Amino acid sequence: MIQIAVLGYGTVGSGVVEVINTNHDSINKRAENEINIKYVLDLRDFPGDPVEKVLVHDYEVIANDPEVDVVVEVMGGVEPAYTFTKRALEAGKSVCTSNKELVARHGTELLAIAKEHGANYLFEASCGGGIPIIRPLNSSLTADEIDEVTGILNGTTNYILSKMASDGSDFADVLKEAQRLGYAERNPEADVEGYDACRKIAILSSLAYGKEVNYEEVYTEGITKITAEDIKYATSMGTAIKLLATSRKVGDQYYAMVSPVMIDAKNPLYSVNGVFNAIFIHGNVLGDAMFYGSGAGKLPTASAVVADVVDCAKNKGRNIMMSWSEEKLDLLQIDDVKSRFFVRVSGHAAERQSEIEELFGKVEIVAVPSLSEEFAFITGEITEQEYREKAEKLDGIQSRIRARI
Amino acid sequence: MIQIAVLGYGTVGSGVVEVINTNHDSINKRAENEINIKYVLDLRDFPGDPVEKVLVHDYEVIANDPEVDVVVEVMGGVEPAYTFTKRALEAGKSVCTSNKELVARHGTELLAIAKEHGANYLFEASCGGGIPIIRPLNSSLTADEIDEVTGILNGTTNYILSKMASDGSDFADVLKEAQRLGYAERNPEADVEGYDACRKIAILSSLAYGKEVNYEEVYTEGITKITAEDIKYATSMGTAIKLLATSRKVGDQYYAMVSPVMIDAKNPLYSVNGVFNAIFIHGNVLGDAMFYGSGAGKLPTASAVVADVVDCAKNKGRNIMMSWSEEKLDLLQIDDVKSRFFVRVSGHAAERQSEIEELFGKVEIVAVPSLSEEFAFITGEITEQEYREKAEKLDGIQSRIRARI
Repeated sequence: MIQIAVLGYGTVGSGVVEVINTNHDSINKRAENEINIKYVLDLRDFPGDPVEKVLVHDYEVIANDPEVDVVVEVMGGVEPAYTFTKRALEAGKSVCTSNKELVARHGTELLAIAKEHGANYLFEASCGGGIPIIRPLNSSLTADEIDEVTGILNGTTNYILSKMASDGSDFADVLKEAQRLGYAERNPEADVEGYDACRKIAILSSLAYGKEVNYEEVYTEGITKITAEDIKYATSMGTAIKLLATSRKVGDQYYAMVSPVMIDAKNPLYSVNGVFNAIFIHGNVLGDAMFYGSGAGKLPTASAVVADVVDCAKNKGRNIMMSWSEEKLDLLQIDDVKSRFFVRVSGHAAERQSEIEELFGKVEIVAVPSLSEEFAFITGEITEQEYREKAEKLDGIQSRIRARI
Repeated sequence: MIQIAVLGYGTVGSGVVEVINTNHDSINKRAENEINIKYVLDLRDFPGDPVEKVLVHDYEVIANDPEVDVVVEVMGGVEPAYTFTKRALEAGKSVCTSNKELVARHGTELLAIAKEHGANYLFEASCGGGIPIIRPLNSSLTADEIDEVTGILNGTTNYILSKMASDGSDFADVLKEAQRLGYAERNPEADVEGYDACRKIAILSSLAYGKEVNYEEVYTEGITKITAEDIKYATSMGTAIKLLATSRKVGDQYYAMVSPVMIDAKNPLYSVNGVFNAIFIHGNVLGDAMFYGSGAGKLPTASAVVADVVDCAKNKGRNIMMSWSEEKLDLLQIDDVKSRFFVRVSGHAAERQSEIEELFGKVEIVAVPSLSEEFAFITGEITEQEYREKAEKLDGIQSRIRARI
């Protein structure tokens, strides 16, 4: 019997209880053991809910019960999740979590504590919801040196951008609709400003490259400035604008970045629409691979958490090595990162192309018939710094979006 | 030190040697051990190749060397691979393979032998080349009851169908070109008749549902009858024709089938083109997930084999439980499986629609301007037997393709 305690009976916590109840038999078979929910911790009461029988309000009950093998931390936020996780691991209890904020901030330390105490700290649900990506990165792609991880890691922003593209609507209107449908939070900042994706790419990169990537060093730009006009250009060019969270090896260095990027149909992420997430990986021998699925939602996320519980059951008393080490990964300064840039400017191409090409060299010109007082151009590959310096000398820039086309 | 022996120095075998040499440091780090190629078995000589130093012609050398921990069987075919694998496992050596024929035919027995001797029989490379799918099915999707596995599992046929769609060419012409480019074998039967995909879906289904699926019971239909005209209809309808290998739970029963299927852009497999493979999974709590990547090729396949070697190194003397049991999965008779059918018939819709609808009930009519002496209709969901019985009563059928639209 594997006794578990679920910290937090919110969306994911109640999903975990539901998944364990629904798939009881097959889960126990795969765990080679019976999984039993001994405690659920929440400050609230749930009168009439079957969970009442195992509900506790005080973490001490769980911390002091030596029978608890696995703690499922699905509270979110840094505190008290951090303290609770640390205490559990130090007591040799394994911890499974969906808490990307905590993993991004304290993953390195918590993994080391787990290892020291023969326990496991697993976080499959922290990135890409139900998509199996942490375990494949850690135990499937072991023959490869990974040189790129690029993901659509936030369902809210992908829904908004997909909807803007299909309906031609403005950001503000689609955001309101997404909030009404429950796809966006009332305070959408963490999603639309890219902070959520930033934490996730830091976690994935730490595993992929085997060194800690500090999420605070990842250049992050959200989607709030993307307009219906930008999308018009993108569509007319057969491209899509996606919020990509990416890290890449360039020569001997790595960079990491979250920003809207224009991609074309050749990119496997191009057709990832709505609330779906996907993670593209490039390995030096594997080549291209992509993992696709539901990036959020109660049951998909709970599915990933419970798969971690099964792994803890199968590996009781045995640490599963994680490739994420304590060494820090030095990231390239954003100024030195190279991209192509899609730039919208006022005026007419016939009059301004030579001025633009004097600055940027040969560019591609794009026009959209319904936007007659402006046009756009796409630069060759230049550094962020070069772009900024040249753009300062150009009047009438309406917007600029990085392009991988 | 983990000593390995590679059986077969063909495409995949030389890839395995190359991957281990190229990524030596990172592989050893992830394996927590040094991986050393002690032997390569091949009947041929390779004068001047560095492999000469470890080349042996006689399997007895490997079988009788107690230092060999892991045997990499990349010979293909059933014999002598089966005998060699069995002997290795019985001696407590783990075996990693890309040999889908052997896994499909004797997987159940070989897994049992491995378990009995505390060894492992791993076959990540047998399905989907470099795509991590076997390990995710076995150790990531453990919280779910999987009710569908549908894959584009053969790169040759996917290349041919993609090319037919993009160029409007005929099957025979594209096959010739694929052979010239090395994407198709000189004897393409195993690919184009669907036999290769059939073995792979039997393996994936055995893992997904936890019971042995006999590949000889999987209804299998290839792509040789698909014509440029079929593709014209598909394109005009915004659909694609793909060779899908699928198994699904319907009520309490399962069916498995390999056949060309018309799918639309809502299906995540729709945009999987060229030699790429992808596997779509549906779990009862996870929802939809898809795994995408290079389904074949020397290095991607070798990447998967070497990842298995790393797993064997990390689990020396410890069997990794596989969900594939000895129990047999009863498959639904093909006659009882339901599909929609796309059917091309001669004549004009205006004259024949009532005759057709008398047989099939309400159908959708499709016409392509350049094909004026025929049209097509799409039935509702009916069983294979119903389709056959009704189709016998209808004159002038040019082709029929199953449709998931």
